[in-house]
Amino acid sequence: MVNQNELKALVGKKAVDWVFDNMTIGLGTGSTVKYMIEALAKKIQKENLSITGIVTSAETAKQATSLGIPLKSVDEVDHIDLTIDGADEVSADFQGIKGGGAALLFEKIVATNSKKNIWIVDQSKLVNKLGSFPLPVEVIPYGSKKIFERFDSRKFHPTFRLAADGSKLRTDSDNYIIDLHLEQITDPFKLADYLKAQVGVVEHGLFLNTVNTVIVGYTSGPKVLEAR
Amino acid sequence: MVNQNELKALVGKKAVDWVFDNMTIGLGTGSTVKYMIEALAKKIQKENLSITGIVTSAETAKQATSLGIPLKSVDEVDHIDLTIDGADEVSADFQGIKGGGAALLFEKIVATNSKKNIWIVDQSKLVNKLGSFPLPVEVIPYGSKKIFERFDSRKFHPTFRLAADGSKLRTDSDNYIIDLHLEQITDPFKLADYLKAQVGVVEHGLFLNTVNTVIVGYTSGPKVLEAR
Repeated sequence: MVNQNELKALVGKKAVDWVFDNMTIGLGTGSTVKYMIEALAKKIQKENLSITGIVTSAETAKQATSLGIPLKSVDEVDHIDLTIDGADEVSADFQGIKGGGAALLFEKIVATNSKKNIWIVDQSKLVNKLGSFPLPVEVIPYGSKKIFERFDSRKFHPTFRLAADGSKLRTDSDNYIIDLHLEQITDPFKLADYLKAQVGVVEHGLFLNTVNTVIVGYTSGPKVLEAR
Repeated sequence: MVNQNELKALVGKKAVDWVFDNMTIGLGTGSTVKYMIEALAKKIQKENLSITGIVTSAETAKQATSLGIPLKSVDEVDHIDLTIDGADEVSADFQGIKGGGAALLFEKIVATNSKKNIWIVDQSKLVNKLGSFPLPVEVIPYGSKKIFERFDSRKFHPTFRLAADGSKLRTDSDNYIIDLHLEQITDPFKLADYLKAQVGVVEHGLFLNTVNTVIVGYTSGPKVLEAR
């Protein structure tokens, strides 16, 4: 039986079938995306493609550069043809939670500016309803304790995400992440509106109506799910 | 006839009438607030008051520290009793535009966590409808050109705010400011919701339902306006 990393590698490879010559491709962040970027670099070399990558994190920029993929900022291109990214949870109706890798802000900025988004996940990420995976909220450090208290009083079970050294983790934009342990999100759209409206909240990990294609790694092989 | 600075000084002095012993006071940012902080420091010394100041910018922190006002972060206090701040425009129905000093984000964080807010302005800031003053929007640098283009296509007449050296100004949170030249804002609540919902927008300068007390410096003297 294949393990989770093999499933991730399979969907990463499958995703580059959507990449064609002269495309501008948003490159997500995370362990599954790493395999996709490897496959993309090989495809570019083998087929001699002219591809521009748009990165969503310092981590992805480093890997893509090391593999010779030409990169630009989202602000340096007219448009992004396609963004391929992972997700931490995908519901039956194609909504998602992202931000396990703390890159949700740049990921959402790139996704918002993309003509099409594809998520690549292993089968363990599929859920009936969102919420088992803690929902990340990126917040301005100043006043973040007040936001935390507000989330706590709403029974959102917040925790500050910590770095390896035990201090509060800083995102690429130098903000904090508060993870909400919600178990089940009844109305993701209502929650998204509430969160984004809070003063001091920069962005949250609910990615709603973002994709209509999800490539899922099953032990039987990758399967492409299309929203109807 | 008194000049604008004298009007600002008068309302700054008047505002400290709302300050009492043992209060935690949010200290805004700007030229009118500077006079208030001077008056506050004198009142603290003269009446031997125990006051804690909560700052909204590096600029205000510097002045308050130099005058010996004890400071804390918004996250170090249980609550803020009162915040006194300036405004760039105040409409007849007590709504405002702030952010001319680029401190809107921390100002709004402090205002949101305050039991009461008072604005101090000279008479030139009073308007019938908001919008003559350019509306500041604080945005994440990554993707900011895309947001600018979106605002431009909506006929918001955006401009990036520049620093003295001609580069894009950076806020205390290292973000950019895009100023919207709207002339007149028909529905501030609708616009506020639209702006805050944009991915990459951190905060905007519309301060709605924030104050019910505004102290206005008229040439005839300061006048206290109370919302009904």
